[in-house]
Amino acid sequence: MYKAPVEEIAFTLNHVAGLGAALEEGRLGDLSGDLVDAILAEAGRFAGEEIAPLGESGDREGARLVDGKVITPKGWPALYKAWCEGGWNGLTGPQDFGGQALPHMLNVAALEMWNAASMAFALAPTLTMGAIEAVSKHGSDELKQTFLEKMVSGEWTGTMNLTEPHAGSDLGVLKSRAERVGDGAYRIFGQKIFITWGEHDAADNIIHLVLARLPDAPAGTRGISLFLVPKFLVNADGSPGERNDVFCHSIEHKLGIHGSPTCTMIFGDGKFGAEKGALGYLVGEENKGLACMFTMMNNARLAVGIQGVAIAEAATQKAVAYAKERTQGKAPGWQGSGMSPIIEHPDIARTLLTMKALTQGSRAICYACAHAIDLSHVTEGEEAKAWAERAALLTPIAKSFSTDAGVDVASMGIQVHGGMGFIEETGAARYLRDARIAPIYEGTNGIQAIDLVTRKLPLSDGAAVRGFIGELRGVAEKLAASNDAAFGTSAERLSAAIADLEAATDWLLETLAAGRQAEALAGATPYQRLFGLTLTGAYLATGALAAASDGAGEKRVALCRFAAENLLAETAALKDAVVGGAASLEAARVVLG
Amino acid sequence: MYKAPVEEIAFTLNHVAGLGAALEEGRLGDLSGDLVDAILAEAGRFAGEEIAPLGESGDREGARLVDGKVITPKGWPALYKAWCEGGWNGLTGPQDFGGQALPHMLNVAALEMWNAASMAFALAPTLTMGAIEAVSKHGSDELKQTFLEKMVSGEWTGTMNLTEPHAGSDLGVLKSRAERVGDGAYRIFGQKIFITWGEHDAADNIIHLVLARLPDAPAGTRGISLFLVPKFLVNADGSPGERNDVFCHSIEHKLGIHGSPTCTMIFGDGKFGAEKGALGYLVGEENKGLACMFTMMNNARLAVGIQGVAIAEAATQKAVAYAKERTQGKAPGWQGSGMSPIIEHPDIARTLLTMKALTQGSRAICYACAHAIDLSHVTEGEEAKAWAERAALLTPIAKSFSTDAGVDVASMGIQVHGGMGFIEETGAARYLRDARIAPIYEGTNGIQAIDLVTRKLPLSDGAAVRGFIGELRGVAEKLAASNDAAFGTSAERLSAAIADLEAATDWLLETLAAGRQAEALAGATPYQRLFGLTLTGAYLATGALAAASDGAGEKRVALCRFAAENLLAETAALKDAVVGGAASLEAARVVLG
Repeated sequence: MYKAPVEEIAFTLNHVAGLGAALEEGRLGDLSGDLVDAILAEAGRFAGEEIAPLGESGDREGARLVDGKVITPKGWPALYKAWCEGGWNGLTGPQDFGGQALPHMLNVAALEMWNAASMAFALAPTLTMGAIEAVSKHGSDELKQTFLEKMVSGEWTGTMNLTEPHAGSDLGVLKSRAERVGDGAYRIFGQKIFITWGEHDAADNIIHLVLARLPDAPAGTRGISLFLVPKFLVNADGSPGERNDVFCHSIEHKLGIHGSPTCTMIFGDGKFGAEKGALGYLVGEENKGLACMFTMMNNARLAVGIQGVAIAEAATQKAVAYAKERTQGKAPGWQGSGMSPIIEHPDIARTLLTMKALTQGSRAICYACAHAIDLSHVTEGEEAKAWAERAALLTPIAKSFSTDAGVDVASMGIQVHGGMGFIEETGAARYLRDARIAPIYEGTNGIQAIDLVTRKLPLSDGAAVRGFIGELRGVAEKLAASNDAAFGTSAERLSAAIADLEAATDWLLETLAAGRQAEALAGATPYQRLFGLTLTGAYLATGALAAASDGAGEKRVALCRFAAENLLAETAALKDAVVGGAASLEAARVVLG
Repeated sequence: MYKAPVEEIAFTLNHVAGLGAALEEGRLGDLSGDLVDAILAEAGRFAGEEIAPLGESGDREGARLVDGKVITPKGWPALYKAWCEGGWNGLTGPQDFGGQALPHMLNVAALEMWNAASMAFALAPTLTMGAIEAVSKHGSDELKQTFLEKMVSGEWTGTMNLTEPHAGSDLGVLKSRAERVGDGAYRIFGQKIFITWGEHDAADNIIHLVLARLPDAPAGTRGISLFLVPKFLVNADGSPGERNDVFCHSIEHKLGIHGSPTCTMIFGDGKFGAEKGALGYLVGEENKGLACMFTMMNNARLAVGIQGVAIAEAATQKAVAYAKERTQGKAPGWQGSGMSPIIEHPDIARTLLTMKALTQGSRAICYACAHAIDLSHVTEGEEAKAWAERAALLTPIAKSFSTDAGVDVASMGIQVHGGMGFIEETGAARYLRDARIAPIYEGTNGIQAIDLVTRKLPLSDGAAVRGFIGELRGVAEKLAASNDAAFGTSAERLSAAIADLEAATDWLLETLAAGRQAEALAGATPYQRLFGLTLTGAYLATGALAAASDGAGEKRVALCRFAAENLLAETAALKDAVVGGAASLEAARVVLG
């Protein structure tokens, strides 16, 4: 069973991702290290003791649609209530509406723990948090007054209604429509698919954020508006009232996250309410809906990235525990009696160390991204811009590298278990089933790569990415200067990776500048992985250097070295694919017919 | 729906794996190219039209244990009967017992098609073929007379009963026991787990091959004997008679291959028969059971490798079809009206081409392995030894590289489908669920790597592997000599990969010779992948050169180049991990606590 790695999480927050320094410098108000520790400890307890047991049973049971009602797994509504009562839903929520306005870093760390215990369960608040953010930033005062308090407390959950059958990655072609009915109100009509927690029995109301098109809207993405559509209209006293004209038509039969209902939602079918059309309220301006959605989507992308970290952590824990317990054969050099624990076999050790390195690397990337978001909020002017650009740059990498790591690590976890890994009751297979959605939703990892290359690299004419690479060089230099033999060739390996990243970055910026976009995009995915791997090396080194200096870092130094000497060499191949792969890819299109 | 790539299979057999030349040289008796084509065409038809539709429904339905009986999915018993009536079960079976004694290559090609249509279904005959081989090679004349005809026809299926709860990769510790009861008969007692098709309703009898230990057997693997234990004892007239004391206690709830019952078998519980103990007959000599099992296991390993190829092919077909149909966004340079098919987006094209290259590479490796087995049977002396060594060397690579490719390609296939890929009804997820067992069973891929490094590399003092690498050099030289610009830098890339393989091989042989086994084993898995990737490059080049010379090879040349310029660069990193990764791995054991 999952046990939250609270110390590791705290270490990564403080010594790798920058929280410690920010606290010392007083950049985060009166937040203290002690409070951080207390929050993490309690989140860890709740995740491990309360959520994790129901995560397993919830996966077996799954969400069900019965007579038009979505029934979540046994115990989940009560679990959700207890979780809300712990104040977890409002950790970063606005203080005016009952939130604690704590840094994103803390919420991301907590999200890691909720997701590791049950990704299907954690999806409910993840969506609510996104909806809170959209309403907070773009909603009218009236909308905020009516909805935010209940959403921040978690009494009401939120959803994001974007996808339609023909409109997934490309939202510009969506067909759902909205009609003005006066007084700032609209009637919404249409069908949305893949709506996470679109309908369920764990909260008193569900607040749908819905993208739709006004009758006179321009075509494409510039004609999309965002609407708030509650399941139950809200009475004058703030209580849920009449049922709105929206319902869940069906739920999907999915590979994983079985406890999370994935709904097809029908708006304006006339099933509920006196008048046809789901009553909705505009969020932000008409035809500016996509921009509103993007504000929240950035954080949602980070929240999905952390799902990858969470699954990787949980899968690694399970595999390490099994490999220590299961005995089989005799590993070279085994001196014990009988068979060795399989962890003694070099191949199993290699697999487990790779899992550890990918988990810790992706965790650091996600936390660093959250830190950049936090500092962009508490700083001003050029500094705020720089932090915002750092966050923008890190977001696609955090989303893609971590979710790929989630899938890969979960798959390795099954392998470590041998035949038992394929048996559902073991629990290792669930991690792979759950993990597999994360590279897809909130913008596929391919979309993230396009975003990284075409929108993030050009930030400040490339200065944002170049400045970041410069910082990574600083890490490699510190590593070289440490002169600690235990690092092996880590410094050289990290330097080489950074050089690969720099060469690929330069080539991409030049190629984009020359207008050869197809060529640049051909290498977008290898580039994204190159960036993530290099960051993994750099962040493991940062942690190892921080720990080494206080004399307790043997493990961190060893893991840094393992990653540098076994995983980082891939960067050369990735760089080659970026700068030299496009021509062969174009030529090979003929293969695809 | 899967459509067998009959032309591609025939091309790979003939022009990459060596069948064409062997036929021309008359090495395979009176087998003609026309007969090969006819067999492949009919196998392809049966797989695509008969098996594939029931593969999907069978996955949904799954095998069930009801009142002690295992019920396979609807239509499967009739499907199995039709398949047997086509003569497919006896393709390579002994002629004396109704088999056609055709080359292994043909059976491996056919197995690819059965598995692509339904891996769960194809497992039944896969296990039977292994049992036929064991009985043919090691069984007494009486056993052969009694059992082989019905097994070759497929009327009776076979199983392999190896694993026990505490004995998986390490069979030396198994506890099932056998008692002598005279007349060459034994009574078997014990529990076996993970027995594929151990019990079912599709055949009149089930012939279990069971590893067990005699009372006076030495400890460890040298004290294991192999027994044939029929579900129904055989009457004097050859018909199934009295029920033997063996039954299926439970079936597993698994991630995939839901149609294939994975049974826990109980022998000698006294549930059936007048006397306690399952009646069994010795196969081979007492205490030599493991050797008998290994004879058949080599072919079983290749048969599992081909499952990886099969899933990769089926997943690729589905993804390519979807990517041509699904439109979303506008790819760079897209001139059509509206959205582009997603296959136009460079990132999707890269994914699909990677899937194609891995599928064709692993197919060629498996077929080449089968060819080596075939030629080892029809040649003599040194030549036969060389072919047997080639087969021995290729077997772990065929098993591991192909099954890893199966998992990776199936996962990529889900990704190409976006959100639809996560929905079970789409069918892409099934491929990942099914594929995931193949790197585990028949010896985990980690066990394959140990086998490759410690037992196969030292064959003929390293001459076997060095000779093979020499042949690969020949391919690279031909490629360089072709002077065809369409190959891009394929020749250089392939040469570099071969150099990496050679350097890693030399290092491993030296390290083993120096007795530093732990160090060698630390790099076993990266070495195995390095070998597989290099072979992929070499075999794609072989095919492209063969096709280029007859002027119809544009696609093959382009795919060869894509693989060379995008996938082969990884070999440098793998070589580094082999020759330089052990120290950091050892040092990092402290991380695992």
